[in-house]
Amino acid sequence: MVLVATRNPLNIGAAARAMSNFGFARLRIVNPYEVAFREARSAVGASALLANAEEYKNVAEAVADCTLVVGTTAVRHRELQHPLRRLEYGARLIRKHLGSSRVALLFGSEKFGLSNEDLSHCHWLMRIPTCEENISMNLGQAVAVCLYEVVRDAKFAAQPEKPKTATAGEVERITRILLDAMRASGYLNRRRISDVEDRIRRLVRRLNLPARDAEVWLGILRQIVWKMRSEKKPEG
Amino acid sequence: MVLVATRNPLNIGAAARAMSNFGFARLRIVNPYEVAFREARSAVGASALLANAEEYKNVAEAVADCTLVVGTTAVRHRELQHPLRRLEYGARLIRKHLGSSRVALLFGSEKFGLSNEDLSHCHWLMRIPTCEENISMNLGQAVAVCLYEVVRDAKFAAQPEKPKTATAGEVERITRILLDAMRASGYLNRRRISDVEDRIRRLVRRLNLPARDAEVWLGILRQIVWKMRSEKKPEG
Repeated sequence: MVLVATRNPLNIGAAARAMSNFGFARLRIVNPYEVAFREARSAVGASALLANAEEYKNVAEAVADCTLVVGTTAVRHRELQHPLRRLEYGARLIRKHLGSSRVALLFGSEKFGLSNEDLSHCHWLMRIPTCEENISMNLGQAVAVCLYEVVRDAKFAAQPEKPKTATAGEVERITRILLDAMRASGYLNRRRISDVEDRIRRLVRRLNLPARDAEVWLGILRQIVWKMRSEKKPEG
Repeated sequence: MVLVATRNPLNIGAAARAMSNFGFARLRIVNPYEVAFREARSAVGASALLANAEEYKNVAEAVADCTLVVGTTAVRHRELQHPLRRLEYGARLIRKHLGSSRVALLFGSEKFGLSNEDLSHCHWLMRIPTCEENISMNLGQAVAVCLYEVVRDAKFAAQPEKPKTATAGEVERITRILLDAMRASGYLNRRRISDVEDRIRRLVRRLNLPARDAEVWLGILRQIVWKMRSEKKPEG
Protein backbone atom coordinates (compact mmCIF):
# COMPACT_ATOMS: atom_id res chain seq x y z
CA MET A 1 0.00 0.00 0.00
CA VAL A 2 1.56 3.27 -1.15
CA LEU A 3 -0.10 6.56 -0.22
CA VAL A 4 1.14 9.45 -2.36
CA ALA A 5 0.90 13.09 -1.21
CA THR A 6 -1.90 12.38 1.25
CA ARG A 7 -3.24 15.60 2.81
CA ASN A 8 -5.22 14.49 5.85
CA PRO A 9 -3.31 12.37 8.41
CA LEU A 10 -6.64 10.91 9.57
CA ASN A 11 -6.93 9.30 6.14
CA ILE A 12 -3.49 7.72 6.54
CA GLY A 13 -4.64 6.35 9.89
CA ALA A 14 -7.88 5.07 8.35
CA ALA A 15 -5.91 3.37 5.55
CA ALA A 16 -3.69 1.73 8.19
CA ARG A 17 -6.77 0.52 10.04
CA ALA A 18 -8.26 -1.02 6.87
CA MET A 19 -4.90 -2.70 6.12
CA SER A 20 -4.90 -4.19 9.58
CA ASN A 21 -8.53 -5.32 9.18
CA PHE A 22 -7.71 -7.20 6.00
CA GLY A 23 -4.27 -8.54 6.90
CA PHE A 24 -1.88 -6.23 5.06
CA ALA A 25 1.23 -5.02 6.87
CA ARG A 26 3.49 -2.82 4.74
CA LEU A 27 2.45 0.81 4.46
CA ARG A 28 4.56 3.24 2.44
CA ILE A 29 4.07 6.98 2.43
CA VAL A 30 5.33 9.30 -0.31
CA ASN A 31 5.50 13.03 0.56
CA PRO A 32 2.60 13.39 2.99
CA TYR A 33 1.42 16.97 3.65
CA GLU A 34 1.42 16.39 7.40
CA VAL A 35 4.63 15.02 8.87
CA ALA A 36 2.99 14.05 12.18
CA PHE A 37 0.75 11.42 10.55
CA ARG A 38 2.16 8.62 12.70
CA GLU A 39 0.01 9.63 15.66
CA ALA A 40 -3.28 9.61 13.70
CA ARG A 41 -5.98 8.46 16.11
CA SER A 42 -7.97 6.97 13.26
CA ALA A 43 -5.57 4.00 13.08
CA VAL A 44 -7.58 2.05 15.66
CA GLY A 45 -5.88 -1.30 16.25
CA ALA A 46 -3.20 -0.42 13.70
CA SER A 47 -0.85 1.89 15.59
CA ALA A 48 2.10 -0.50 15.21
CA LEU A 49 1.49 -0.75 11.47
CA LEU A 50 1.40 3.04 11.22
CA ALA A 51 4.54 3.42 13.33
CA ASN A 52 6.35 1.06 10.97
CA ALA A 53 5.23 2.88 7.80
CA GLU A 54 8.17 3.69 5.53
CA GLU A 55 8.57 7.18 4.09
CA TYR A 56 9.83 7.86 0.57
CA LYS A 57 10.65 10.96 -1.45
CA ASN A 58 9.11 9.69 -4.67
CA VAL A 59 7.07 6.91 -6.20
CA ALA A 60 10.02 5.32 -8.01
CA GLU A 61 11.79 4.55 -4.73
CA ALA A 62 8.59 3.49 -2.97
CA VAL A 63 7.80 0.81 -5.57
CA ALA A 64 11.38 -0.24 -6.48
CA ASP A 65 11.12 -3.76 -4.99
CA CYS A 66 7.66 -4.52 -6.46
CA THR A 67 7.05 -6.46 -9.65
CA LEU A 68 3.53 -5.13 -10.19
CA VAL A 69 2.54 -1.51 -9.64
CA VAL A 70 -1.18 -0.68 -9.77
CA GLY A 71 -2.55 2.87 -9.62
CA THR A 72 -6.06 3.72 -8.45
CA THR A 73 -8.23 6.38 -10.05
CA ALA A 74 -11.82 7.59 -9.89
CA VAL A 75 -11.58 9.17 -13.35
CA ARG A 76 -12.85 7.20 -16.32
CA HIS A 77 -12.65 9.47 -19.30
CA ARG A 78 -9.31 11.17 -18.72
CA GLU A 79 -6.83 10.50 -21.46
CA LEU A 80 -5.57 7.41 -19.73
CA GLN A 81 -2.36 6.04 -21.14
CA HIS A 82 -2.89 2.80 -19.21
CA PRO A 83 -5.31 -0.07 -19.27
CA LEU A 84 -8.09 0.72 -16.77
CA ARG A 85 -9.59 -2.25 -14.95
CA ARG A 86 -12.61 -2.53 -12.71
CA LEU A 87 -11.82 -3.53 -9.14
CA GLU A 88 -13.52 -6.95 -9.47
CA TYR A 89 -11.03 -8.00 -12.15
CA GLY A 90 -8.01 -5.96 -11.07
CA ALA A 91 -8.10 -7.39 -7.55
CA ARG A 92 -8.08 -10.88 -9.02
CA LEU A 93 -4.89 -10.12 -10.95
CA ILE A 94 -3.35 -8.60 -7.82
CA ARG A 95 -4.28 -11.67 -5.76
CA LYS A 96 -2.62 -13.98 -8.27
CA HIS A 97 0.50 -11.86 -8.31
CA LEU A 98 0.71 -11.68 -4.50
CA GLY A 99 1.23 -15.42 -4.41
CA SER A 100 4.73 -15.07 -5.80
CA SER A 101 5.90 -11.47 -5.45
CA ARG A 102 5.25 -7.95 -4.23
CA VAL A 103 2.51 -5.68 -5.52
CA ALA A 104 2.35 -1.91 -4.93
CA LEU A 105 -1.16 -0.42 -4.80
CA LEU A 106 -1.01 3.36 -5.19
CA PHE A 107 -3.52 5.94 -3.92
CA GLY A 108 -3.07 9.62 -4.76
CA SER A 109 -3.97 12.74 -2.81
CA GLU A 110 -7.55 13.37 -1.71
CA LYS A 111 -7.76 16.43 -3.93
CA PHE A 112 -5.92 15.54 -7.12
CA GLY A 113 -5.41 11.79 -7.13
CA LEU A 114 -2.23 10.46 -8.72
CA SER A 115 -0.26 12.77 -11.02
CA ASN A 116 0.67 11.77 -14.55
CA GLU A 117 4.23 11.27 -13.35
CA ASP A 118 2.99 8.95 -10.55
CA LEU A 119 0.86 7.06 -13.09
CA SER A 120 3.83 6.53 -15.40
CA HIS A 121 5.24 4.14 -12.79
CA CYS A 122 2.13 1.95 -12.94
CA HIS A 123 1.58 -1.13 -15.05
CA TRP A 124 -2.16 -0.52 -15.13
CA LEU A 125 -4.92 1.37 -13.33
CA MET A 126 -7.85 0.22 -11.30
CA ARG A 127 -11.17 1.88 -10.51
CA ILE A 128 -13.88 1.12 -7.96
CA PRO A 129 -17.26 0.70 -9.70
CA THR A 130 -18.91 3.81 -8.24
CA CYS A 131 -21.94 5.64 -9.61
CA GLU A 132 -21.46 8.27 -12.31
CA GLU A 133 -23.25 10.76 -10.04
CA ASN A 134 -20.59 10.57 -7.32
CA ILE A 135 -17.42 8.80 -8.40
CA SER A 136 -15.14 10.30 -5.76
CA MET A 137 -14.68 8.17 -2.65
CA ASN A 138 -13.16 9.05 0.71
CA LEU A 139 -9.56 7.79 0.73
CA GLY A 140 -9.95 5.55 3.78
CA GLN A 141 -13.13 4.04 2.38
CA ALA A 142 -11.55 3.46 -1.05
CA VAL A 143 -8.58 1.68 0.58
CA ALA A 144 -10.95 -0.49 2.62
CA VAL A 145 -13.01 -1.47 -0.44
CA CYS A 146 -9.93 -2.31 -2.55
CA LEU A 147 -8.28 -4.42 0.16
CA TYR A 148 -11.56 -6.18 0.91
CA GLU A 149 -11.87 -7.16 -2.75
CA VAL A 150 -8.30 -8.50 -2.76
CA VAL A 151 -8.90 -10.77 0.26
CA ARG A 152 -12.51 -11.53 -0.67
CA ASP A 153 -13.03 -15.26 -0.98
CA ALA A 154 -15.30 -16.21 -3.85
CA LYS A 155 -15.94 -19.67 -2.49
CA PHE A 156 -17.95 -18.17 0.36
CA ALA A 157 -20.27 -16.38 -2.06
CA ALA A 158 -21.79 -19.72 -2.98
CA GLN A 159 -22.11 -20.93 0.60
CA PRO A 160 -25.23 -23.06 0.67
CA GLU A 161 -27.99 -22.60 3.19
CA LYS A 162 -27.32 -24.83 6.13
CA PRO A 163 -30.08 -27.45 6.43
CA LYS A 164 -31.45 -26.27 9.73
CA THR A 165 -35.15 -26.67 9.01
CA ALA A 166 -37.35 -28.98 11.05
CA THR A 167 -37.91 -32.55 9.88
CA ALA A 168 -41.11 -33.57 8.13
CA GLY A 169 -42.08 -35.56 11.24
CA GLU A 170 -41.76 -32.51 13.50
CA VAL A 171 -43.68 -30.35 11.04
CA GLU A 172 -46.47 -32.94 10.91
CA ARG A 173 -46.71 -33.05 14.72
CA ILE A 174 -47.00 -29.27 14.76
CA THR A 175 -49.64 -29.42 12.02
CA ARG A 176 -51.78 -31.86 14.03
CA ILE A 177 -51.62 -29.93 17.24
CA LEU A 178 -52.41 -26.76 15.31
CA LEU A 179 -55.47 -28.49 13.85
CA ASP A 180 -56.46 -29.50 17.39
CA ALA A 181 -56.12 -25.87 18.45
CA MET A 182 -58.20 -24.72 15.52
CA ARG A 183 -60.94 -27.20 16.39
CA ALA A 184 -60.83 -26.36 20.09
CA SER A 185 -61.09 -22.66 19.32
CA GLY A 186 -64.03 -23.16 17.01
CA TYR A 187 -62.17 -21.76 13.99
CA LEU A 188 -62.72 -24.96 12.00
CA ASN A 189 -66.38 -25.25 12.94
CA ARG A 190 -67.16 -21.81 11.69
CA ARG A 191 -65.52 -22.25 8.30
CA ARG A 192 -66.29 -25.56 6.69
CA ILE A 193 -63.76 -26.28 3.97
CA SER A 194 -63.55 -29.76 2.53
CA ASP A 195 -59.76 -30.03 2.13
CA VAL A 196 -58.97 -28.01 5.26
CA GLU A 197 -56.32 -30.40 6.60
CA ASP A 198 -54.33 -30.25 3.38
CA ARG A 199 -54.53 -26.48 3.33
CA ILE A 200 -53.27 -26.23 6.91
CA ARG A 201 -50.52 -28.73 6.14
CA ARG A 202 -49.27 -26.56 3.27
CA LEU A 203 -49.64 -23.43 5.40
CA VAL A 204 -47.37 -24.86 8.09
CA ARG A 205 -44.84 -26.13 5.58
CA ARG A 206 -44.49 -22.67 4.00
CA LEU A 207 -43.13 -21.43 7.34
CA ASN A 208 -39.90 -23.39 6.76
CA LEU A 209 -39.68 -23.90 10.51
CA PRO A 210 -36.14 -23.99 11.91
CA ALA A 211 -35.31 -27.32 13.60
CA ARG A 212 -34.40 -25.55 16.85
CA ASP A 213 -37.85 -23.96 17.08
CA ALA A 214 -39.95 -27.08 16.51
CA GLU A 215 -40.15 -28.05 20.20
CA VAL A 216 -40.98 -24.49 21.24
CA TRP A 217 -43.89 -24.28 18.80
CA LEU A 218 -45.16 -27.69 19.90
CA GLY A 219 -45.03 -26.55 23.52
CA ILE A 220 -46.88 -23.30 22.81
CA LEU A 221 -49.61 -25.03 20.82
CA ARG A 222 -50.04 -27.86 23.36
CA GLN A 223 -50.46 -25.34 26.14
CA ILE A 224 -53.05 -23.42 24.12
CA VAL A 225 -55.00 -26.59 23.35
CA TRP A 226 -54.82 -27.71 26.99
CA LYS A 227 -56.04 -24.32 28.18
CA MET A 228 -58.97 -24.22 25.77
CA ARG A 229 -60.04 -27.76 26.67
CA SER A 230 -59.71 -27.28 30.43
CA GLU A 231 -61.76 -24.09 30.28
CA LYS A 232 -64.45 -25.88 28.32
CA LYS A 233 -65.02 -28.57 30.98
CA PRO A 234 -66.36 -26.36 33.77
CA GLU A 235 -68.84 -24.87 31.34
CA GLY A 236 -69.87 -28.21 29.91
CA MET B 1 -29.25 1.69 5.42
CA VAL B 2 -30.13 2.09 9.09
CA LEU B 3 -27.57 3.60 11.48
CA VAL B 4 -28.42 2.89 15.11
CA ALA B 5 -27.11 5.05 17.98
CA THR B 6 -24.17 6.36 15.96
CA ARG B 7 -21.85 8.48 18.10
CA ASN B 8 -19.72 10.42 15.62
CA PRO B 9 -21.61 12.54 13.07
CA LEU B 10 -18.61 12.32 10.74
CA ASN B 11 -19.31 8.61 10.48
CA ILE B 12 -22.91 9.32 9.49
CA GLY B 13 -21.57 11.65 6.79
CA ALA B 14 -19.07 9.03 5.63
CA ALA B 15 -21.83 6.42 5.45
CA ALA B 16 -23.91 8.84 3.36
CA ARG B 17 -20.93 9.37 1.04
CA ALA B 18 -20.45 5.62 0.53
CA MET B 19 -24.19 5.22 -0.14
CA SER B 20 -23.98 7.92 -2.77
CA ASN B 21 -20.86 6.28 -4.27
CA PHE B 22 -22.63 2.97 -4.68
CA GLY B 23 -26.08 4.22 -5.64
CA PHE B 24 -28.11 3.86 -2.46
CA ALA B 25 -30.48 6.67 -1.49
CA ARG B 26 -32.46 5.99 1.68
CA LEU B 27 -30.63 6.65 4.93
CA ARG B 28 -32.39 6.12 8.25
CA ILE B 29 -31.01 7.18 11.59
CA VAL B 30 -32.11 5.73 14.94
CA ASN B 31 -31.21 7.75 18.06
CA PRO B 32 -27.94 9.39 17.00
CA TYR B 33 -25.81 10.84 19.83
CA GLU B 34 -25.30 14.08 17.93
CA VAL B 35 -28.45 15.77 16.70
CA ALA B 36 -26.56 18.06 14.30
CA PHE B 37 -25.35 15.22 12.11
CA ARG B 38 -27.03 16.62 9.01
CA GLU B 39 -24.22 19.11 8.47
CA ALA B 40 -21.42 16.50 8.61
CA ARG B 41 -18.73 17.68 6.20
CA SER B 42 -17.66 14.10 5.54
CA ALA B 43 -20.73 13.58 3.32
CA VAL B 44 -18.83 14.81 0.25
CA GLY B 45 -21.17 14.70 -2.73
CA ALA B 46 -23.95 13.30 -0.55
CA SER B 47 -25.31 16.35 1.29
CA ALA B 48 -28.78 15.97 -0.26
CA LEU B 49 -28.89 12.32 0.77
CA LEU B 50 -27.91 13.29 4.31
CA ALA B 51 -30.45 16.12 4.42
CA ASN B 52 -33.17 13.64 3.44
CA ALA B 53 -32.20 11.06 6.06
CA GLU B 54 -35.19 9.96 8.14
CA GLU B 55 -34.97 9.87 11.94
CA TYR B 56 -36.61 7.18 14.06
CA LYS B 57 -36.96 6.55 17.77
CA ASN B 58 -36.38 2.82 17.55
CA VAL B 59 -35.36 0.01 15.21
CA ALA B 60 -38.89 -1.43 14.93
CA GLU B 61 -40.19 1.76 13.31
CA ALA B 62 -37.11 2.23 11.15
CA VAL B 63 -37.46 -1.21 9.54
CA ALA B 64 -41.26 -1.48 9.51
CA ASP B 65 -41.64 -1.32 5.69
CA CYS B 66 -38.79 -3.75 4.95
CA THR B 67 -39.21 -7.45 4.22
CA LEU B 68 -35.63 -8.39 5.06
CA VAL B 69 -33.70 -6.96 8.01
CA VAL B 70 -29.96 -7.73 8.18
CA GLY B 71 -27.76 -6.78 11.14
CA THR B 72 -24.01 -6.31 10.90
CA THR B 73 -21.57 -7.47 13.55
CA ALA B 74 -17.82 -7.83 13.97
CA VAL B 75 -18.24 -10.40 16.73
CA ARG B 76 -18.02 -14.05 15.80
CA HIS B 77 -18.18 -16.00 19.01
CA ARG B 78 -20.84 -14.10 20.91
CA GLU B 79 -23.84 -16.22 21.73
CA LEU B 80 -25.53 -15.33 18.49
CA GLN B 81 -29.17 -16.27 18.29
CA HIS B 82 -29.11 -15.67 14.52
CA PRO B 83 -27.51 -17.25 11.49
CA LEU B 84 -24.22 -15.38 10.85
CA ARG B 85 -23.21 -15.03 7.20
CA ARG B 86 -20.02 -13.83 5.60
CA LEU B 87 -20.42 -10.70 3.52
CA GLU B 88 -19.68 -12.51 0.23
CA TYR B 89 -22.77 -14.68 0.68
CA GLY B 90 -24.96 -12.30 2.67
CA ALA B 91 -24.62 -9.56 0.05
CA ARG B 92 -25.75 -12.02 -2.61
CA LEU B 93 -28.94 -12.76 -0.65
CA ILE B 94 -29.50 -9.02 -0.15
CA ARG B 95 -29.02 -8.35 -3.87
CA LYS B 96 -31.60 -10.99 -4.79
CA HIS B 97 -34.06 -9.56 -2.30
CA LEU B 98 -33.56 -5.97 -3.51
CA GLY B 99 -34.95 -6.99 -6.87
CA SER B 100 -38.45 -7.26 -5.45
CA SER B 101 -38.62 -5.48 -2.10
CA ARG B 102 -36.94 -3.41 0.59
CA VAL B 103 -33.99 -4.54 2.68
CA ALA B 104 -32.80 -2.83 5.88
CA LEU B 105 -29.07 -3.10 6.60
CA LEU B 106 -28.35 -2.20 10.24
CA PHE B 107 -25.11 -0.84 11.68
CA GLY B 108 -24.78 -0.30 15.44
CA SER B 109 -22.83 2.26 17.43
CA GLU B 110 -19.06 2.58 16.99
CA LYS B 111 -18.48 1.46 20.56
CA PHE B 112 -21.00 -1.29 21.23
CA GLY B 113 -22.42 -2.35 17.89
CA LEU B 114 -26.05 -3.45 17.79
CA SER B 115 -27.78 -4.32 21.09
CA ASN B 116 -29.51 -7.64 21.63
CA GLU B 117 -32.83 -5.83 21.34
CA ASP B 118 -31.73 -4.34 17.98
CA LEU B 119 -30.59 -7.77 16.82
CA SER B 120 -33.94 -9.33 17.69
CA HIS B 121 -35.45 -7.36 14.78
CA CYS B 122 -33.02 -8.97 12.32
CA HIS B 123 -33.62 -12.03 10.15
CA TRP B 124 -29.92 -12.81 10.11
CA LEU B 125 -26.51 -11.25 10.71
CA MET B 126 -23.63 -10.49 8.42
CA ARG B 127 -19.93 -10.04 9.10
CA ILE B 128 -17.11 -8.63 6.98
CA PRO B 129 -14.27 -11.19 6.69
CA THR B 130 -11.68 -9.27 8.70
CA CYS B 131 -8.56 -10.69 10.36
CA GLU B 132 -8.84 -12.18 13.83
CA GLU B 133 -6.13 -9.74 14.98
CA ASN B 134 -8.24 -6.66 14.25
CA ILE B 135 -11.89 -7.45 13.57
CA SER B 136 -13.25 -3.98 14.35
CA MET B 137 -13.68 -1.69 11.37
CA ASN B 138 -14.36 2.02 11.20
CA LEU B 139 -18.09 2.52 10.64
CA GLY B 140 -17.74 4.49 7.42
CA GLN B 141 -15.33 1.94 6.00
CA ALA B 142 -17.56 -0.97 6.99
CA VAL B 143 -20.54 0.66 5.28
CA ALA B 144 -18.47 1.24 2.13
CA VAL B 145 -17.27 -2.38 2.01
CA CYS B 146 -20.78 -3.80 2.54
CA LEU B 147 -22.42 -1.59 -0.10
CA TYR B 148 -19.58 -2.29 -2.54
CA GLU B 149 -20.16 -6.02 -2.15
CA VAL B 150 -23.90 -5.59 -2.75
CA VAL B 151 -23.36 -3.71 -6.04
CA ARG B 152 -20.25 -5.68 -7.02
CA ASP B 153 -20.74 -7.29 -10.40
CA ALA B 154 -19.31 -10.78 -10.60
CA LYS B 155 -19.32 -10.82 -14.38
CA PHE B 156 -16.54 -8.23 -14.39
CA ALA B 157 -14.29 -10.43 -12.26
CA ALA B 158 -13.82 -12.72 -15.23
CA GLN B 159 -13.25 -9.90 -17.70
CA PRO B 160 -10.76 -11.25 -20.22
CA GLU B 161 -7.61 -9.42 -21.22
CA LYS B 162 -8.36 -7.30 -24.22
CA PRO B 163 -6.29 -8.50 -27.19
CA LYS B 164 -4.19 -5.42 -27.55
CA THR B 165 -0.85 -7.04 -28.30
CA ALA B 166 1.03 -6.41 -31.52
CA THR B 167 0.54 -8.76 -34.47
CA ALA B 168 3.13 -11.40 -35.31
CA GLY B 169 4.06 -9.38 -38.40
CA GLU B 170 4.81 -6.25 -36.36
CA VAL B 171 6.78 -8.24 -33.82
CA GLU B 172 8.84 -9.82 -36.59
CA ARG B 173 9.63 -6.40 -38.14
CA ILE B 174 10.78 -5.21 -34.72
CA THR B 175 12.88 -8.36 -34.30
CA ARG B 176 14.66 -7.80 -37.63
CA ILE B 177 15.45 -4.17 -37.00
CA LEU B 178 16.67 -5.10 -33.50
CA LEU B 179 18.98 -7.69 -35.08
CA ASP B 180 20.22 -4.96 -37.46
CA ALA B 181 20.91 -2.75 -34.46
CA MET B 182 22.73 -5.55 -32.66
CA ARG B 183 24.89 -6.16 -35.70
CA ALA B 184 25.54 -2.44 -36.28
CA SER B 185 26.53 -2.02 -32.64
CA GLY B 186 28.92 -4.95 -32.78
CA TYR B 187 26.99 -6.86 -30.07
CA LEU B 188 26.48 -9.86 -32.34
CA ASN B 189 30.08 -9.94 -33.51
CA ARG B 190 31.42 -10.13 -30.01
CA ARG B 191 29.20 -13.04 -28.91
CA ARG B 192 28.96 -15.75 -31.51
CA ILE B 193 25.93 -17.91 -30.80
CA SER B 194 24.73 -20.28 -33.45
CA ASP B 195 20.96 -19.89 -32.96
CA VAL B 196 21.15 -16.20 -32.12
CA GLU B 197 18.25 -15.16 -34.34
CA ASP B 198 15.88 -17.65 -32.72
CA ARG B 199 16.93 -16.50 -29.29
CA ILE B 200 16.31 -12.86 -30.13
CA ARG B 201 12.98 -13.74 -31.71
CA ARG B 202 11.87 -15.42 -28.47
CA LEU B 203 13.28 -12.53 -26.42
CA VAL B 204 11.17 -10.02 -28.33
CA ARG B 205 8.05 -12.17 -28.16
CA ARG B 206 8.30 -12.44 -24.39
CA LEU B 207 7.78 -8.66 -24.22
CA ASN B 208 4.14 -9.10 -25.27
CA LEU B 209 4.39 -5.78 -27.08
CA PRO B 210 1.18 -3.73 -27.08
CA ALA B 211 -0.15 -3.06 -30.59
CA ARG B 212 -0.12 0.69 -30.02
CA ASP B 213 3.62 0.64 -29.20
CA ALA B 214 4.81 -1.35 -32.22
CA GLU B 215 5.33 1.69 -34.46
CA VAL B 216 7.12 3.60 -31.70
CA TRP B 217 9.59 0.78 -31.12
CA LEU B 218 10.18 0.42 -34.85
CA GLY B 219 10.89 4.14 -35.09
CA ILE B 220 13.29 4.12 -32.14
CA LEU B 221 15.21 1.13 -33.46
CA ARG B 222 15.35 2.44 -37.05
CA GLN B 223 16.76 5.74 -35.83
CA ILE B 224 19.39 3.93 -33.76
CA VAL B 225 20.41 1.76 -36.72
CA TRP B 226 20.51 4.78 -39.02
CA LYS B 227 22.65 6.71 -36.51
CA MET B 228 25.10 3.88 -36.05
CA ARG B 229 25.45 3.33 -39.80
CA SER B 230 25.79 7.01 -40.64
CA GLU B 231 28.48 7.44 -37.99
CA LYS B 232 30.35 4.42 -39.34
CA LYS B 233 30.66 5.86 -42.82
CA PRO B 234 32.89 8.89 -42.00
CA GLU B 235 35.24 6.55 -40.10
CA GLY B 236 35.28 3.90 -42.84
